Amino acid sequence: MPAPIEFYFDFTSPYSYLASEQIDDLAARHGRTVDYRPTLLGAAFRVSGQRPLPEIPLKGDYSRRDIARSARYAGIAFALPDPFPIATVQAARACLVLQSQYPALATAYIHGVFRAYFVQGRNITEPAVLRAVLCDVMRDVLPDGSAGAPADAVLAATAGEAVKQRLKEAVDASIARGVFGAPYFIVDGEPFWGHDRLAHIERWLQSGPF
Amino acid sequence: MPAPIEFYFDFTSPYSYLASEQIDDLAARHGRTVDYRPTLLGAAFRVSGQRPLPEIPLKGDYSRRDIARSARYAGIAFALPDPFPIATVQAARACLVLQSQYPALATAYIHGVFRAYFVQGRNITEPAVLRAVLCDVMRDVLPDGSAGAPADAVLAATAGEAVKQRLKEAVDASIARGVFGAPYFIVDGEPFWGHDRLAHIERWLQSGPF
Repeated sequence: MPAPIEFYFDFTSPYSYLASEQIDDLAARHGRTVDYRPTLLGAAFRVSGQRPLPEIPLKGDYSRRDIARSARYAGIAFALPDPFPIATVQAARACLVLQSQYPALATAYIHGVFRAYFVQGRNITEPAVLRAVLCDVMRDVLPDGSAGAPADAVLAATAGEAVKQRLKEAVDASIARGVFGAPYFIVDGEPFWGHDRLAHIERWLQSGPF
Repeated sequence: MPAPIEFYFDFTSPYSYLASEQIDDLAARHGRTVDYRPTLLGAAFRVSGQRPLPEIPLKGDYSRRDIARSARYAGIAFALPDPFPIATVQAARACLVLQSQYPALATAYIHGVFRAYFVQGRNITEPAVLRAVLCDVMRDVLPDGSAGAPADAVLAATAGEAVKQRLKEAVDASIARGVFGAPYFIVDGEPFWGHDRLAHIERWLQSGPF
């Protein structure tokens, strides 16, 4: 079994959202799976001295245009949310809780959070929004009406020291791997940064290192 | 006649070099020409607060790998030169002189300078290297042995106030257009940044705005 594609992402990153809509199919075409790794770009920016894209003079204005055009180019539903960018600590912590307690639901949660923010424009910093996504995801596997309690338990766990520590370790580990931005992929040890590198990844998986 | 593709570049930018190897054919496929506009990234970085790619922690290391891989992906000859990056003021000024005095030779000069630096590893900050490129380009249109004097005249002109002022104005104009990095393209008013946006440009030229 070949190694999964490591996919580092931040829920506030629109290019991560675009990649999240394409990476599962890309991986499947080559017999791979995706290892979703939430991280926090703010921590990486502190190391690299970078700033969030929207704050950079000239580049910020361009990026708003490019993100929307990139979505249209790829045929992916997208609307730039407001507020943007946002803090994604709780969404990322809930992701880690799901990956450990309900691993079969974690990918659906990730897509659900991304779409809540970048398609429906819901503010994913609000616990009520995260709870709604969790309930949607759990409804698929739990009896009718019983998703509320486990969703609340996942949210409650995000306030615990153990989960805080695990996210901190995950962020530190991503920086140690060189993850300075998102989306960031590692395929058999080879790093790829950006939604616009999916074609490189495809060729790498198809024909091997180039 | 549709408008030319405005192509903003800096001779020290490897992604600009990669784009320069593909943009003429791309434009020609859609009945366009390329309007080559030399600029200086340092000035844009002062406005945007960015730094040269190689200096950015984590991202700099990644970029060296990505540039070489992007060249292989596109099938373009490339070797990261040393020193890199460099100051390209004189190469850019000579470009402006050619564009005004020998417009038919300017594109060949641009390709010649890029290849001297990114294929042959020659230091294009050295006047002797620029002179050799100029002689190569002029040999195609001048009688044998007569390229030296006009090449020297172009280089001499780069020290004149008029040319210094024209480059300064060109750089200011590029920043006023929003050019924060290179390569940067403007197609019928639509901006595209990066070698990795050539596919977007191709679709734009093929099917119109999207």
